[in-house]
Amino acid sequence: MFSPLDTRMMARALQLARRGRFRAAPNPHVGCVLVREGAVIGEGTTQPAGGHHAEVEALAMAGDARGATAYVTLEPCSHHGKTGPCAEALIAAGVVRVVAAMEDPNPRVAGGGLSKLREAGIAVDCGLLQSEAEEVIPGFIARMRRGRGRVRAKLAMSLDGRTAMASGESQWITGPAARQDVQRLRAASCAIVTGVGTVLADNCSLTVRREQLDASSLAQEAGQRQPLRVVLDSALQTPAGANILSADAPTLLCHTAGAGVESHLLPVDRAELPVAATGMDLSALMSLLATRQCNEILVESGPRLAGAMLQAGLLDELIVYMAPVLMGSSANPLLHLPLDSMAQKVALKVVDVRQVGSDWRFTLAPE
Amino acid sequence: MFSPLDTRMMARALQLARRGRFRAAPNPHVGCVLVREGAVIGEGTTQPAGGHHAEVEALAMAGDARGATAYVTLEPCSHHGKTGPCAEALIAAGVVRVVAAMEDPNPRVAGGGLSKLREAGIAVDCGLLQSEAEEVIPGFIARMRRGRGRVRAKLAMSLDGRTAMASGESQWITGPAARQDVQRLRAASCAIVTGVGTVLADNCSLTVRREQLDASSLAQEAGQRQPLRVVLDSALQTPAGANILSADAPTLLCHTAGAGVESHLLPVDRAELPVAATGMDLSALMSLLATRQCNEILVESGPRLAGAMLQAGLLDELIVYMAPVLMGSSANPLLHLPLDSMAQKVALKVVDVRQVGSDWRFTLAPE
Repeated sequence: MFSPLDTRMMARALQLARRGRFRAAPNPHVGCVLVREGAVIGEGTTQPAGGHHAEVEALAMAGDARGATAYVTLEPCSHHGKTGPCAEALIAAGVVRVVAAMEDPNPRVAGGGLSKLREAGIAVDCGLLQSEAEEVIPGFIARMRRGRGRVRAKLAMSLDGRTAMASGESQWITGPAARQDVQRLRAASCAIVTGVGTVLADNCSLTVRREQLDASSLAQEAGQRQPLRVVLDSALQTPAGANILSADAPTLLCHTAGAGVESHLLPVDRAELPVAATGMDLSALMSLLATRQCNEILVESGPRLAGAMLQAGLLDELIVYMAPVLMGSSANPLLHLPLDSMAQKVALKVVDVRQVGSDWRFTLAPE
Repeated sequence: MFSPLDTRMMARALQLARRGRFRAAPNPHVGCVLVREGAVIGEGTTQPAGGHHAEVEALAMAGDARGATAYVTLEPCSHHGKTGPCAEALIAAGVVRVVAAMEDPNPRVAGGGLSKLREAGIAVDCGLLQSEAEEVIPGFIARMRRGRGRVRAKLAMSLDGRTAMASGESQWITGPAARQDVQRLRAASCAIVTGVGTVLADNCSLTVRREQLDASSLAQEAGQRQPLRVVLDSALQTPAGANILSADAPTLLCHTAGAGVESHLLPVDRAELPVAATGMDLSALMSLLATRQCNEILVESGPRLAGAMLQAGLLDELIVYMAPVLMGSSANPLLHLPLDSMAQKVALKVVDVRQVGSDWRFTLAPE
């Protein structure tokens, strides 16, 4: 069904798709390549929300796409969103074959785009490099399939697994390269979740700092979008003048019923969350963020919230930066996670290990 | 002074030297290559103590070594130990040139071997691949130069830096490949140091288990020598029937003055150590082990002894096996190391990182 040319062109489309990772949200970032007689005549990547989808970009570059094959990393959309449906655009352009890596998990599409193409007499093949395509947009897929984006916790620790001294002092455990890497993580996220304890202790901003991103144009583009900052603040204790309330980025304060709203918080976006056995209902938080179209969610918090997220089964990935230092046995733990026996230990799958400057980064998935 | 042939032959001699790492102690493991007219005519590695040194092995293989050049990774000895001096053997064999990687740091040799060769009219060059040669026998060099062998602590921890549950339960944190790797570490050690707490908690044997060593003949040979087991047991509490007192390997119990000797300990080798501010004098222990000719010393203990060794500045290297699991915030720390501020954190140099089975091994040196 698929030729070597097909595979090569889809691999190129996947490259183009990845270019959109810092800017396409809440849309999935998609890549499209138009090929006629073995030659590439158009390429496109999803533009920032409200802008062109990848297919329309590629068609614009080609000018005349009659008789061409379109390689797309996700089924072309069939519905009218902020832009017109891409399936119709491909039909109108006279494309004769469409190769898609995967069906769109969005229930508003879900095969509808491919059907529309087939009905127009276009040859359609789906499933080429599907698992690779799924790895490009894990957050969008997770939000569509299970109603919760992809959730990652970022942690910085010493070799002996400590994240702060007992006093709370933690600057700096890791070096500049790891901190720059964190900026890229933030830039690829739709929301950054933390607890009010971290806000009170560190007066953190949790913004993407353009000057700390590397000089590539992609990463610089990323700095133009700021993820939603989400603070778990049950009693609404975030103080006036806190950096997390700065105008640089949007902020959402999540509180429980009956929290008193100080006047300085009146203009701030707030949401009430139910209470679960061990604190605020984190699962409800994830559902709330899904309704706000957050695909990629980054948790940057203290050990207590990160531990609760893990124990609630809500973490898809841990990204742990390990500095080659010892902070000692009085310092704070990586995660608040009270376990009694080896049988309770949490097994992790090692997804990736690499050196980042003088530190080591482990990417791990709970098994 | 050195030709490409010289370098190639010394590299070969270093390979031969490494072959002796499991068996030559307390002697340094040395390699020797005899070359005549560009061809290797003899090779040798230091045999177990009391057996031939590398030079004598190589001469025996060559039969007639007249006119040859000898490449040795350490200056040939000039003194009568358990065997005759190698310098005299090379002179008697009619060797015309000796290339040594380094002078022998043993004060009984210290250039005396090279002088003896020069006096006999042999051309002598020293210093080829010296730093590589020093890396082959760090324990012997450390013992000769500073009166204390090379000390390494082996630690097994979870990703969150924990070495046992609060109950003491710790089997198994790491997988079979890491445990096999530890057997090789033990096999290359002259002494294994632990505390009586570990003996009481785990009833550990701390022997080299041949069946867990890989099938290579070198490692198997290693299993025939058992390192000295050293227990820091200030009050001589090691119980009758403890595995650490088994006949498989020698054991030394280190105690403080006035410890009562139970009758079952009467036949066991014992040594009294002075008391320092925070417990037994660990520096005195290291001197004691040097007088017992221990080059490579491995600490396999709980967090308290390992932490005390680190704080006393006695650890040359930490070998940390990290399993991709979380043991939680109630579990025991990697090292007992009470620090208060980030300024006190202990910086480590990362010497090596590699995957061992499903675990990760970090080799680190305190800076």
